[in-house]
Amino acid sequence: MTQSNLLYAHSGGVTAVINASAAAVIGAARSRPDRVGQVLAAHGGILGVLAEALIDTRSLDEAALYRLSLRPGGVFGSCRFDLPQDDGKRVTDRLFEVFAAHGIGYFVYNGGNGSMDAVGRLSDAARERGYPLVCVGVPKTVDNDIVGTDCCPGFGSAAKYLATSMLEAGLDIRSMVGRRGSVFVMEVMGRNTGWLAAATALAAGGNPDAAPHIVLVPEAVFDEEAFLAAVQRVTERLGYCAITVAEGLRRVDGSLIMEKSRDPRGYVQLGGAGSAIARMIHERLGYKHHWAIPDYLQRAGGHWLSATDREQAMAVGRAAVEMAVDGRSGCFPAIRRISDAPYRWEIQAEEASRIANLERALPAAFIREDGLHVTDSACDYIRPLIEGEVLQPTRGGLPDYGMFELPRLGHRLPPWQV
Amino acid sequence: MTQSNLLYAHSGGVTAVINASAAAVIGAARSRPDRVGQVLAAHGGILGVLAEALIDTRSLDEAALYRLSLRPGGVFGSCRFDLPQDDGKRVTDRLFEVFAAHGIGYFVYNGGNGSMDAVGRLSDAARERGYPLVCVGVPKTVDNDIVGTDCCPGFGSAAKYLATSMLEAGLDIRSMVGRRGSVFVMEVMGRNTGWLAAATALAAGGNPDAAPHIVLVPEAVFDEEAFLAAVQRVTERLGYCAITVAEGLRRVDGSLIMEKSRDPRGYVQLGGAGSAIARMIHERLGYKHHWAIPDYLQRAGGHWLSATDREQAMAVGRAAVEMAVDGRSGCFPAIRRISDAPYRWEIQAEEASRIANLERALPAAFIREDGLHVTDSACDYIRPLIEGEVLQPTRGGLPDYGMFELPRLGHRLPPWQV
Repeated sequence: MTQSNLLYAHSGGVTAVINASAAAVIGAARSRPDRVGQVLAAHGGILGVLAEALIDTRSLDEAALYRLSLRPGGVFGSCRFDLPQDDGKRVTDRLFEVFAAHGIGYFVYNGGNGSMDAVGRLSDAARERGYPLVCVGVPKTVDNDIVGTDCCPGFGSAAKYLATSMLEAGLDIRSMVGRRGSVFVMEVMGRNTGWLAAATALAAGGNPDAAPHIVLVPEAVFDEEAFLAAVQRVTERLGYCAITVAEGLRRVDGSLIMEKSRDPRGYVQLGGAGSAIARMIHERLGYKHHWAIPDYLQRAGGHWLSATDREQAMAVGRAAVEMAVDGRSGCFPAIRRISDAPYRWEIQAEEASRIANLERALPAAFIREDGLHVTDSACDYIRPLIEGEVLQPTRGGLPDYGMFELPRLGHRLPPWQV
Repeated sequence: MTQSNLLYAHSGGVTAVINASAAAVIGAARSRPDRVGQVLAAHGGILGVLAEALIDTRSLDEAALYRLSLRPGGVFGSCRFDLPQDDGKRVTDRLFEVFAAHGIGYFVYNGGNGSMDAVGRLSDAARERGYPLVCVGVPKTVDNDIVGTDCCPGFGSAAKYLATSMLEAGLDIRSMVGRRGSVFVMEVMGRNTGWLAAATALAAGGNPDAAPHIVLVPEAVFDEEAFLAAVQRVTERLGYCAITVAEGLRRVDGSLIMEKSRDPRGYVQLGGAGSAIARMIHERLGYKHHWAIPDYLQRAGGHWLSATDREQAMAVGRAAVEMAVDGRSGCFPAIRRISDAPYRWEIQAEEASRIANLERALPAAFIREDGLHVTDSACDYIRPLIEGEVLQPTRGGLPDYGMFELPRLGHRLPPWQV
């Protein structure tokens, strides 16, 4: 078979190890000169492909690729843009024009559930058009909600960051226990799922007196009275209570837990679940209240990566290139768990269209019956994913994430207007 | 001279290296058996002394002391309690009863400005009473606002944590730049001072395009219009803007920047400066807005300590014991900077009463003229304080902060009622 060019693009929210996948894709593609010509990367995700904003990755030598594999945030940029279903194929037409103009025969798309949908659809579109494109996915999301893979690169490092944060904040608040009682609430990401919230349970190491004492996940309906009673029990026993709250927490009527306030123009939403829960406790129980919102910090913590997560991010990157050159269009490399302890895993091909736009929630067996914590099974599942540390080069006391030369290719097509 | 017992206590908010000072105090006290008998620690700060909740530190062997020196949060507990001025010496009387009952000849008090006031007053009280007590301070605060010392143990690690967080969040948000413009706001501690906010400027490494683009400190009055104009300029140029906001930020009328909302019972305050600023930008400029509130995480980040900070925390602990056995009551070990680069420093004795209850603000030379950022001088000052990393032992992917046996001494006095 002939050689053709490979295009790599990011999609959706970035992670601490998304560049590790990128570096692995580029490295693996280079190792197959029999099949892969130029290795290009889109600047700013699929919108970058549409805009023909393409980066020539030859500027990244081996040392740069290694540095890249340690850098959080997507160095090539990303975007949130789903392929429209109803634009008369205008977007798809343009994508194939760009592919054709740059001799792209492989499109490697790094993203979550929505991106796997795109992988399936572009793969179908190529077949329909008779265009020789192999389109494969690379799984990625801190939310860990992709169906068909045991875990998602990006999750392990965010989970490690959050479990460490809860462990450390727990030691802090325990130092300051006073007569009045105090609560600490940490709001974590995860969209509609509680995987990241569940990860903070690892901080307790099985000790029921250690933080977090309560873990609220979106999969368990929030019952305010039962929750407050539990907070009170813990605080009366220990003097304090540490609580993890998933951002997607909902009431029984399906409404999100958020802070609302009235401003001169009417009701507006102010804060997220974390401050709403902290404030609810303060108002109802009178405890001193603190809340933390790590926000982007939890998915960008390159200084405290999970070595397991980074290894998996690179493994799926390499495997995606192998699947691409093997012509397995419409697939993505999924992680299959062989055993918990010792943790063993392997990569297998999964069909993107089969899992597209689904969402994997915490199974019921991972949630405690009262809905206020997660089970040992949840901890057993997550524990291996945060294992191992990665030594980051530093300069001046900060991680040295380096600078990268990312030269753009010249345009070969007229400009694109979304 | 004869031998007497040493009592160590924490005061106020804890830090990531407060236990490093504790371990150094205990180690140094043990090395002076000619002067120091038992080494005791108060459980829960000065309230623990009043309650006669005293820990016998003999349970901590050399290995435990080393582990302790790496553990965030105050292992002996702490509290916020200032010695009352107007209680007819009731509290002071009780303290001296506890000192006498346990043969305490040395009181080593670890805290901030308020604690240095207590050191001076207890030292005077001992002289007045003719009680042979040497009282010395150990400086500590993430806020870095103690007068008379070039810097405060605890600050360097919090500064490193926050500068790293801004660096990493900056890489994340830069990946996701869209057409609409987005802002990221991180709220940091520091009470009335902007030292921690200023530390985040190190993330940019002198690059005007790198995060943080704006740093708001309490020492510069907040001008909403000038601020919003700057946010708009940055966002129009780069597509995003990353902003550090100190919790103590104030308007020209002296009021704190906080979110307010009306609830059924009237106006209440909801959030802090970070969410208020993020929301202000969103409402006035329409940008996508995210905010992070690291809260306790910033002062408990044992997984990412500044080696310099930890070294200084131990040095002031050791020096405090030396001052104690030398009979320098009313003093505390201050850090004097000899040079910026290479960073050289030494310990010198400072008089506690001279600096008690003062507060060191950012000097004007550290704040940019427009009040929207800090200067190179501020970065030059802070840079050496975040230098160096500390390898933390880990277990299961989390820092292994260990367990400590902290047996209490029996009570020798009747109970105390505050």
